[in-house]
Amino acid sequence: MDHQHFMAAVWHGARDIRVEPRSRMPLVPGEIRIRVAACGICGSDVHEYVDGPHAIPTDAVHPLSGRRAPLVIGHEFCGTVVELAPDVSTVDREQRVVVEPEYRCGRCAACLRGEYNQCRFMGFAGLMGDGGMADEAVVPAYMAHSLPDQVSFEQAAVLEPAAVALHAIRQGGLSAGMRCAVAGAGPIGLLIVQLARIAGARQIAVSDVSDDRLARALALGATHTVNARTERLAETADEVDVAFEAVGAQAALDDAYATVRKGGRLVLVGLFGHRPTIDAFGLVNREINLISSVGYRHVFPDLIEMVANGLFDPSRIVTRQVSLEAVVEEGFGRLARETVDVKVLVRPCEGQR
Amino acid sequence: MDHQHFMAAVWHGARDIRVEPRSRMPLVPGEIRIRVAACGICGSDVHEYVDGPHAIPTDAVHPLSGRRAPLVIGHEFCGTVVELAPDVSTVDREQRVVVEPEYRCGRCAACLRGEYNQCRFMGFAGLMGDGGMADEAVVPAYMAHSLPDQVSFEQAAVLEPAAVALHAIRQGGLSAGMRCAVAGAGPIGLLIVQLARIAGARQIAVSDVSDDRLARALALGATHTVNARTERLAETADEVDVAFEAVGAQAALDDAYATVRKGGRLVLVGLFGHRPTIDAFGLVNREINLISSVGYRHVFPDLIEMVANGLFDPSRIVTRQVSLEAVVEEGFGRLARETVDVKVLVRPCEGQR
Repeated sequence: MDHQHFMAAVWHGARDIRVEPRSRMPLVPGEIRIRVAACGICGSDVHEYVDGPHAIPTDAVHPLSGRRAPLVIGHEFCGTVVELAPDVSTVDREQRVVVEPEYRCGRCAACLRGEYNQCRFMGFAGLMGDGGMADEAVVPAYMAHSLPDQVSFEQAAVLEPAAVALHAIRQGGLSAGMRCAVAGAGPIGLLIVQLARIAGARQIAVSDVSDDRLARALALGATHTVNARTERLAETADEVDVAFEAVGAQAALDDAYATVRKGGRLVLVGLFGHRPTIDAFGLVNREINLISSVGYRHVFPDLIEMVANGLFDPSRIVTRQVSLEAVVEEGFGRLARETVDVKVLVRPCEGQR
Repeated sequence: MDHQHFMAAVWHGARDIRVEPRSRMPLVPGEIRIRVAACGICGSDVHEYVDGPHAIPTDAVHPLSGRRAPLVIGHEFCGTVVELAPDVSTVDREQRVVVEPEYRCGRCAACLRGEYNQCRFMGFAGLMGDGGMADEAVVPAYMAHSLPDQVSFEQAAVLEPAAVALHAIRQGGLSAGMRCAVAGAGPIGLLIVQLARIAGARQIAVSDVSDDRLARALALGATHTVNARTERLAETADEVDVAFEAVGAQAALDDAYATVRKGGRLVLVGLFGHRPTIDAFGLVNREINLISSVGYRHVFPDLIEMVANGLFDPSRIVTRQVSLEAVVEEGFGRLARETVDVKVLVRPCEGQR
C-alpha cells in the first residue's frame, strides 16, 4: 500500500463491515495520529455488526466528530503517537497512549461541571466518529492518556471497558466490606467482579446463563455463582449493599433487584433494548435506589496507575487476539454466533509490543 | 361513657370503619397515653377504607405492635400526654406532643445505622397497630416529640405528611437554586411544593389533573403548573435537577421522568398499585438516578422548629376539620368520592387548643 492509505475495519451497514484502505487525512488543530497497537471488540460493536445502526449516525453527522457512516469502528484502543497537530502540547511523538474515546464539547452544563460523560453531544470515537480498529487512528488529543512502560498494549486495550466497570462501582458506592451481586458475566460484568474484589467487597455473587463465564467469574474473584437458567441470584445472595445489572434484560433486572437490602442500590449498566417493568412499590417501600452509570469520567488515570502498580490486570478477560485482516470472520462473526469468547483484541500493527 | 372506655374510629374492613367505644387498657413499660387533639386523614387511610386491607394486618399480628384488625386507624396525630408508664422519663404529663408513628425494633441493621424507616418490621401506628383517630391513644414513648407553645395542634397534625415530604426532598438532594418538578398535587405533592420553596428551589413546576389543586400549588409556591389531562409537564419544565413522583401511576412517572436533566434525580414517593415500565435505556444513557423515599427519619425535630420559627406552616393544606363522630361520612366517604379537599383533620377532643 502507498503512504497515503492505511487499512481499517469500516462499518458500512449491518453485516457489512469491510477491511479496506482509507485515505490518510491531514490533522486539524487539536488532533493526534496514533499507530494502533490493539483494539478490543465491544458488545456494542457486535450489535452494530449484527443489526445496526444503533449508535452509528447514518443521516446527520455527529456534531462533535463531524462524521457519519461509513466510519471506522472500534473504541477500545491504544497505540503510539506518530503525529501531532502543531498546537498539541499534551502528548509527544512516540509516546505510548490509550484512548479514552468519549467526545466532549467542553461547553455544556455537564462538561462544565466535569461530568463529561453526560455531555449533551455524548458520543464515542469508533461509534459516532472514526475509531481505532485500523492501522492508524486520528483522535482529539484530549482523549489520549500516556501509558507507563509497565502497562502493556494488551492491558491498555481493555482499559475502556474497565473504565465502564470502575465508574459503575463508584456510582454505586461499593466499598470495602460490602456485599454485592452482579447479574451478567460478559466483559463488563467480569470487570466489575474483578474490580469489586479489588475494592474489598466481602461477597460477590454472579449470575449468567453460561457456565464458562461463571467459571471465569470465579477465577476473577466471585465468591458465589448461579446459572440464571435454573436458579435465581437471590437464592444465593440476599441483603446485598450494591447489585449491578450488566445485561440489559428484564430477567437480569428482576434477579439483581431481588438481592438488594433495604436502603441498598441497584446499579444499571446494561443497555436495555426494551422498556422493562419495575417493582416500584417495593423499590419505594424498601427505599432502594436505582443508580445509572454510563461510560466513565475521571477514571482512566486511576486505572492506568492500578495496572502499572500490579493491582489490576484487565488483560485477564482477553480470550483471543486476531489480525485486522481476519476481524470480520474471526472477530465479529464468531462473537455474533457464540459466547465462548469474552474479550477479543484486534492487533492491527503486527510487531508492536 | 364510663371512665373505662373511649371513642375511636376502628377499621373492621373495607367500607367498614366504625366510631365505637374501646376499652382503656393499662399501659405496659415504655408506653404513654395521649389525649388526642387532632388526627389527619391520609390517602393511605382512604385506601384502607375503600378497598383495604393494604397495610393493615388481618391474619398474623404485626411483630412490633402485637395487633391486627380490627384496630384504631389514623397515624397523623398529636395531643396531650395524660399518662406515662413508670419507666418513661422522656416526656411529662400534660406535655403537648406530636406522634412520629413509625415503629422501630431498634435491633435490626437498619435501626442500628439510624435508618429506622427501613426497619425490618416497618410499620405505622394507625395502620399496623392502634392509631390516633380516637379520643385517646397509646403509643411507645419514643414516638412522641414535644411541641413548643408556638406550634398549634392544627399544624402538628400535618407534621407527619410534611415529614414524608421533607425526607423526599432530602433524599433527592434538592438544594437552593435548583429546578424541580412535582407530579401530583395531593397532600404530599403540595407539601413538597411548599418545602421546595422554603429550600430555595428556583423553579417548581407542578402537574395534577385537578385545577383546584394546581391553584393551591401556585398559592404554596409553585412557579408553573400544568393540567396533566391536557399537557405534559416536560412542555413547561425541562432540565430539572430533581423531579418528584407523588402519585404512584405510570403517567405521572413518565411525566416526571421527562423533565429530568442528564445526571439528575427522579424521586419516587408515590406508592404504585401496579408495576410501571421505565425507559431504562434512557435512564442509563442520561445517567438519571431513581431515588426512593419512604416515610421519614430524623426530620420531626427540624420540622417542629421550622413551624415554631414561623418558617413553615403545614396547616395551609388543611381544608376541613370534622368531629370524630362524623368522620366516616364527612371524612372517609367524602374523600373517597371527590378530590376537592386536600387535608381533612379529625378533632376528637373538642375544646383542646
